[in-house]
Amino acid sequence: MENAIFSWESEVRDYECDLQGIVNNANYQHYLEHARHLFLKSRGIDFAEVTARGIFLIVIRIEIDYKYPLRAADRFRVDLKLERLTRIRFVFEQEIFRAGDDKLAIKARVFTAAMNKEGRPILPRELEALLPGLESQ
Amino acid sequence: MENAIFSWESEVRDYECDLQGIVNNANYQHYLEHARHLFLKSRGIDFAEVTARGIFLIVIRIEIDYKYPLRAADRFRVDLKLERLTRIRFVFEQEIFRAGDDKLAIKARVFTAAMNKEGRPILPRELEALLPGLESQ
Amino acid sequence: MENAIFSWESEVRDYECDLQGIVNNANYQHYLEHARHLFLKSRGIDFAEVTARGIFLIVIRIEIDYKYPLRAADRFRVDLKLERLTRIRFVFEQEIFRAGDDKLAIKARVFTAAMNKEGRPILPRELEALLPGLESQ
Amino acid sequence: MENAIFSWESEVRDYECDLQGIVNNANYQHYLEHARHLFLKSRGIDFAEVTARGIFLIVIRIEIDYKYPLRAADRFRVDLKLERLTRIRFVFEQEIFRAGDDKLAIKARVFTAAMNKEGRPILPRELEALLPGLESQ
Repeated sequence: MENAIFSWESEVRDYECDLQGIVNNANYQHYLEHARHLFLKSRGIDFAEVTARGIFLIVIRIEIDYKYPLRAADRFRVDLKLERLTRIRFVFEQEIFRAGDDKLAIKARVFTAAMNKEGRPILPRELEALLPGLESQ
Repeated sequence: MENAIFSWESEVRDYECDLQGIVNNANYQHYLEHARHLFLKSRGIDFAEVTARGIFLIVIRIEIDYKYPLRAADRFRVDLKLERLTRIRFVFEQEIFRAGDDKLAIKARVFTAAMNKEGRPILPRELEALLPGLESQ
Repeated sequence: MENAIFSWESEVRDYECDLQGIVNNANYQHYLEHARHLFLKSRGIDFAEVTARGIFLIVIRIEIDYKYPLRAADRFRVDLKLERLTRIRFVFEQEIFRAGDDKLAIKARVFTAAMNKEGRPILPRELEALLPGLESQ
Repeated sequence: MENAIFSWESEVRDYECDLQGIVNNANYQHYLEHARHLFLKSRGIDFAEVTARGIFLIVIRIEIDYKYPLRAADRFRVDLKLERLTRIRFVFEQEIFRAGDDKLAIKARVFTAAMNKEGRPILPRELEALLPGLESQ
């Protein structure tokens, strides 16, 4: 992905494949989520700790194009970019590539927001701090 | 959902909830997939058997709007409709409602196709047989 | 199972099968756990609510004999019995049968206890209330 | 683990935690399985490829002691040893340690065998080749 601001590499685990012999569709969401959480952590935002404080980082919409299936033991890389949509909404652009030949497996747009316990949209300081770097995009 | 052609009811299992205390996003894909497979089965198409014969029913794109989170022990209903996009592409419209108050939890569009082992698009007789009922839509 | 005090029936979901075409071993733990939680609920103990109050019902040991694999679309029944080991330890005997022919798929012993947030063993009143019925076993 | 013949390190992914805030019991089986498959692969045995050839490496019994829970973002290490029980049965001794302080989280014994498509026990050449190294244990 051009201008990716974060990447995570891993490998398919056999139990993530279903009876078609390929990674089950839902598991790509796991890869995408884990990459986002690692990105947040790299910027000082710990998902579990933020949740424990009553701040809910939530996905409000996801679009995933399944371009090419990953198989047992494939290595892959998840790239991501982050864009601000509104004052309180963000979209992660994420792509998953098979390692080795950089074959595009997954292309996703993940729309996110933050809420407090009462379900009100909020903008926690930590996320605000992520934004200067996003300003120019 | 208006004009749903199939519905499946079930309940959230505690292990499907994550540390936010709500159903993890990826698990809604499991609910959606299971409802589609039950629908196919109700029309005589067994997913595992079709797969064993070398026909791969695949998702090529998914769009999910997360409207309201389901929680531990919530009962829910998945409704679906099926539309033909092109001769060989279909889209399942699917919605998940919390039982009891019919609160809309998930709204999804799932774009699907069928392929043979060589990755060529095909239209197996069983899917063709689904289509007359779709013609008019 | 002879003298089962609770049963739960369901069906295998395709995504629970792995590339061997059978239910992945870890998923039987999901079935066993969900059956235990439904049993507790039938006796007025809501797992999520108990957890939210700082009481952790935990598994300390599990023994599972994999007798016969379940496959895509198989229906199954989980039976359970509950025995008290010590004042604060319990063991659930659980068996999973394929519906239709009652073929034994899984035989499990699940050793459990309750802890408070500090990790101290406790015996919440709700569990105590389960016990009279257990006394005689 | 003393005399471990294989180790795999990884980290907890947030979606693997449940509403107790700790890794769900079933997910440790995923960690244990993935470590075994990586071990086999390191010895030239590819689980998916072996399965495609009609050889089923199966778990016949598992015993897991849950010693200490892993939490979101914990790093961990899975160690394993392999013992031959009979000509065709093997047991993997596996332990999972939290990284950093080497706290024991999981202690498991996993009894395995190999079968052909007809369900008959077999001893594929690849497993036989693993055995000389096991003889002396």
